[in-house]
Amino acid sequence: MGDSIRDANGSIDWDEEVDVLVVGLGVAGAAAALEASSSGADTLVLERAGAGGGTSAMSGGVIYLGGGTGLQKSCGFEDSPEEMFKYLMASTGLAPDESKIRLYCEGSVAHYDWLCACGVPFKQTYYHGTSGEPPTDDGLVWSGAENAQPFRDLARPAPRGHVPQIEHQGGPLLMERLCAAVNESPARVAANHRCTALYQRSDGHVEGVAARCFGEERRIRARGGVILTTGGFVLNDDMLLKHAPLALRCGMRVAATGDDGSGIRLGIGAGGATIHMDAVSISLPITQPWGLKRGILVNSEGQRFINEDTYYGRLGEAALLHNDGRAFLVVDDGIFEKPEYMETVAGVGESPKELEAALGLPAGSLQATLALYNQHAENASDPVFHKSADYLEKLDRPPYGAFDCTTDKALYAVFTLGGLHTDTEGRVLDPEGDPIPGLFAAGRSTSGLAVGGYSSGLSLGDGSFFGRRAGRTAAGVRE
Amino acid sequence: MGDSIRDANGSIDWDEEVDVLVVGLGVAGAAAALEASSSGADTLVLERAGAGGGTSAMSGGVIYLGGGTGLQKSCGFEDSPEEMFKYLMASTGLAPDESKIRLYCEGSVAHYDWLCACGVPFKQTYYHGTSGEPPTDDGLVWSGAENAQPFRDLARPAPRGHVPQIEHQGGPLLMERLCAAVNESPARVAANHRCTALYQRSDGHVEGVAARCFGEERRIRARGGVILTTGGFVLNDDMLLKHAPLALRCGMRVAATGDDGSGIRLGIGAGGATIHMDAVSISLPITQPWGLKRGILVNSEGQRFINEDTYYGRLGEAALLHNDGRAFLVVDDGIFEKPEYMETVAGVGESPKELEAALGLPAGSLQATLALYNQHAENASDPVFHKSADYLEKLDRPPYGAFDCTTDKALYAVFTLGGLHTDTEGRVLDPEGDPIPGLFAAGRSTSGLAVGGYSSGLSLGDGSFFGRRAGRTAAGVRE
Repeated sequence: MGDSIRDANGSIDWDEEVDVLVVGLGVAGAAAALEASSSGADTLVLERAGAGGGTSAMSGGVIYLGGGTGLQKSCGFEDSPEEMFKYLMASTGLAPDESKIRLYCEGSVAHYDWLCACGVPFKQTYYHGTSGEPPTDDGLVWSGAENAQPFRDLARPAPRGHVPQIEHQGGPLLMERLCAAVNESPARVAANHRCTALYQRSDGHVEGVAARCFGEERRIRARGGVILTTGGFVLNDDMLLKHAPLALRCGMRVAATGDDGSGIRLGIGAGGATIHMDAVSISLPITQPWGLKRGILVNSEGQRFINEDTYYGRLGEAALLHNDGRAFLVVDDGIFEKPEYMETVAGVGESPKELEAALGLPAGSLQATLALYNQHAENASDPVFHKSADYLEKLDRPPYGAFDCTTDKALYAVFTLGGLHTDTEGRVLDPEGDPIPGLFAAGRSTSGLAVGGYSSGLSLGDGSFFGRRAGRTAAGVRE
Repeated sequence: MGDSIRDANGSIDWDEEVDVLVVGLGVAGAAAALEASSSGADTLVLERAGAGGGTSAMSGGVIYLGGGTGLQKSCGFEDSPEEMFKYLMASTGLAPDESKIRLYCEGSVAHYDWLCACGVPFKQTYYHGTSGEPPTDDGLVWSGAENAQPFRDLARPAPRGHVPQIEHQGGPLLMERLCAAVNESPARVAANHRCTALYQRSDGHVEGVAARCFGEERRIRARGGVILTTGGFVLNDDMLLKHAPLALRCGMRVAATGDDGSGIRLGIGAGGATIHMDAVSISLPITQPWGLKRGILVNSEGQRFINEDTYYGRLGEAALLHNDGRAFLVVDDGIFEKPEYMETVAGVGESPKELEAALGLPAGSLQATLALYNQHAENASDPVFHKSADYLEKLDRPPYGAFDCTTDKALYAVFTLGGLHTDTEGRVLDPEGDPIPGLFAAGRSTSGLAVGGYSSGLSLGDGSFFGRRAGRTAAGVRE
C-alpha cells in the first residue's frame, strides 16, 4: 500500500496534536484553514514551499462565480443559480458531479461575499475582451464559453469570471490576501514542511501525518482530520503517461513546483479512489485579441472543427484531444492582426489555393472549407459550427495567412483535472463510495466541477468553495 | 478499504488450502490454471457461473497472433515479431505498455503452438473479407487496421486474426477446448463459486479468498497466490459513468453476465492501482460487406473524419469518442448493397444536395465533401484521409443514400479495456508500482495490450498470454 502509509494502531509518539491539519496552502488550503479555525478548531497548515500561494498564486486569479453576485449586479448583468447550473452541467465534460455543481451554484453569491470579507478586492467594473486575465484591473470578465454555441442556447449567458483588482494577473493578489487572512486567523502555518506519510489505523481512520522540515521528521496528530490540498499532478510525468499522455505534448504546464500528485498518491495509499484522472484543461489562447475569432481554425485535413468564438480552453481541448494537436488559424488581410500569444506564421498565399499548398494541406481541402465558410458568412450564418454572427465575415481579401497552432509551435497550457474522489463535504471516498474517516481533500488534488470541459476560474472556484466545506466538516461542524 | 477485504493477520479457519487460486474461468483463467497446474501447483479455479467460458465463450473467437505463426506460414503470409511490434505500438492507443507488447510479439508464435497443443483447431486457410468473425471455418483473417493508413506505411501488413475452426463464431469452440484441457489437467474447477472477499495481511500479502456457493461461505487459502481473471466492467453502470461515460450510449455491451468489475474492485480494495480506466473498444461494423468501404462516413457537420477502409473498431472509436456518435455512411447507386449489421436508411436523394437536406446536414457541407472526395477518387487518390485505392471510386451515380450510424440507430458494440495495473508477470501493482504480494490478474480485469486503439483478438490474445504468465509466476516458476 505504498511507503506513504504508516500503521497507526500502536502507540505513536506524536510531536504535536491539532484538531485539523491542512496539507498545502493554495487557495483550497487557505479556505479550509479559514473555515476550520473560524469553527473553533485548532488548525495547522503545512506548506512544503517557503511560503503559501502554490499554483493559485501564479494563476490569472479568475474565480468562476455567478448566480447574481454583487459584482455581476454592479456591472448590470443578470444571472441566476439556475442559469449558471445549466451552463456548468452542459459545459464541464461528460458526467460531471451534479451534486457539487448544484451546491456551487446555489452557494456562489455567498461565496463571493466571503471572498470579499476575506479582503479580496474586486473592482466593480466589467471588461469586454480577453478571457481570463484582463490587462486592466476590471473585476468582471467572460471566462468561459457562455456566449458561444451550443451554450448560449442552453443557458442565458452571463460573464462569471471574477478577478481581483490588479492589472494583468490576479493570482498573486488573491493569495496575498487569503494568506494574510489565514495569518490573522487563529490557524497556524508551518512553511517548509513536506507531508511524507499518513498514519492510518486498520479500521481505515486517518490519525495524522508525518512531515519533514529541513531533514527532521515530525509526527502530527489530527483529531478531526487531515485535509489534502496539494494540487494536481501535471508535473508528474509518470502519472501523466498513465492517465493523460497527450498532456505531455503541451509546452506549458500550469503549475507551481508542488503539482507532482503527492497528495493524490497519499490519498490513494490510504484507500482513496480517484476519478476522471484522464481529464485535463488545455488552453490554446489563439483568438486574442478577439478580432481573431473572425478567422477559421482548421486541422491537418484542412477542415474546421469548432466554432472559433468559443472559450480558448475549448479550442485547446478540441485541437489536442480530437485533432492530434495540429491546427492552423487562417486569416485574410481584412482581419489580420498580431496575436497576443502566437509568433509563428505557418504560411501565406495570394489565394486560398496558395495558402493551402504553403501549409501542406490536402489539395482542395482548405479551398473547399473556405468556400463553404464564405458562402454562409456572407449571410452572417455558420450552419456548420454556429459561430456567432459577431465574428462572421467573409475571408476573401488577399493575402491569406495562417498562424501555426500545432503543439510544437503554439502555446498549449495544460493542467490536470482528475484526482481524489470526494463528496460535497470534502470527504475522500473509497472505491465503494464510503468516506475514509479522518481524510479530506479539496482543490486540484480532487476531481471538482470540471471533468473534461473547462472555463477559467473553476479551479480557484471549486478549490476555495469545497475547501471551506472540507474545513468545516473536519472541524466537526454538522449542517 | 471496502467490505471486500478482510484482515488475514489473525488465525483463520480455512476450509481449503491450495497453491494457486484462479478466480474466473474465461480465457485468462483457463490459461492461468493450465500453466499453474502444469508447473506442479495445486490449482483451483472458482467460476461464479454454472460452467466456464465467460465472455470469451460468447466472442468471435479471434485471437490476435503473429510474427510468423504456423497458420500464417501455411497461408503464405510473411510476418515477423518486429513488424507486429511496430503495428501494435502504433495502433493500440496512446502510451501502451511497451514491455507487454514486446513480450507478446516475441512469444506469439510459441503461444499459437501452445493453443494448438491445448486442442484448439485452426484450419490452415485464409479468408479475405469480414473482420473478426468469418462466416466460414477459415483460420486466418484480417482483424485490425494493418492494411489501412497510417499503419500500412508504418509496418508491413499481415493478417493476424487466428480463428478456431468452426463456421461463424469461434468463441464457444475456443472455450470448449480450453475448458476441456483444464478438466484434463490436475487443476480443479469449482463452479457456482463467487469470490466475495480477499484476505490480506497488514503487510499487504494476499492470503486467500472467501467465496460463496449456494449461500454458503468457504474460506480458501492460496499459498502461492490469487489470480483475478474476472473480466471487465462494461456491465457496471456506476463504473462506466465514472470512467467511460460515452460507453453508456452504446447499444451493445460485449459481455457475459460477469463483466461487472467485481475482480477489479477486489484488486483495488487490496491496494491495487488501476490504469487506462477510460479506455474502451467500440466496434461499428458498418463496412461489411467490404464493398461498403467505398462509401464515405460523414459526421453531423457533413465532414469525413476517417479512412473508411480501416478496421471497424477504429470507425467506432472515431465516431463515438471524437464525433459525438453521430455519423452517416453515404453511398451512391453504384456501390449500394445491403449492410450486414445495419437496417436504418437515414435518407435518400437524387442529388448530393437532396441527400444533404434529407439528412439535415448543414447546407453545402455534404456537397463540398463529396465534390472534394470525387475530385480525388477519380485519380484513385484520397489525400485527405488516405483510404486505399482498392476502395476509391467516384460516388456520382444517383440515387444517393445514407445509412444511419448514430448511436441510437446503429450497432455500437463496446467493452472496457482498463483495469488493474499489472506487470508482465501478471503481478498486480500498487500505485507506487510495487507488486502486491500474492495477488495476480490477467485478461480484461487488467489493462493489457490495447489502451485505446483496438484490433480484434487482442483480448483473447493478451488474456491467454499473460494469464499463462500469471499462472507460472503464482506457481513459483522463476524464469
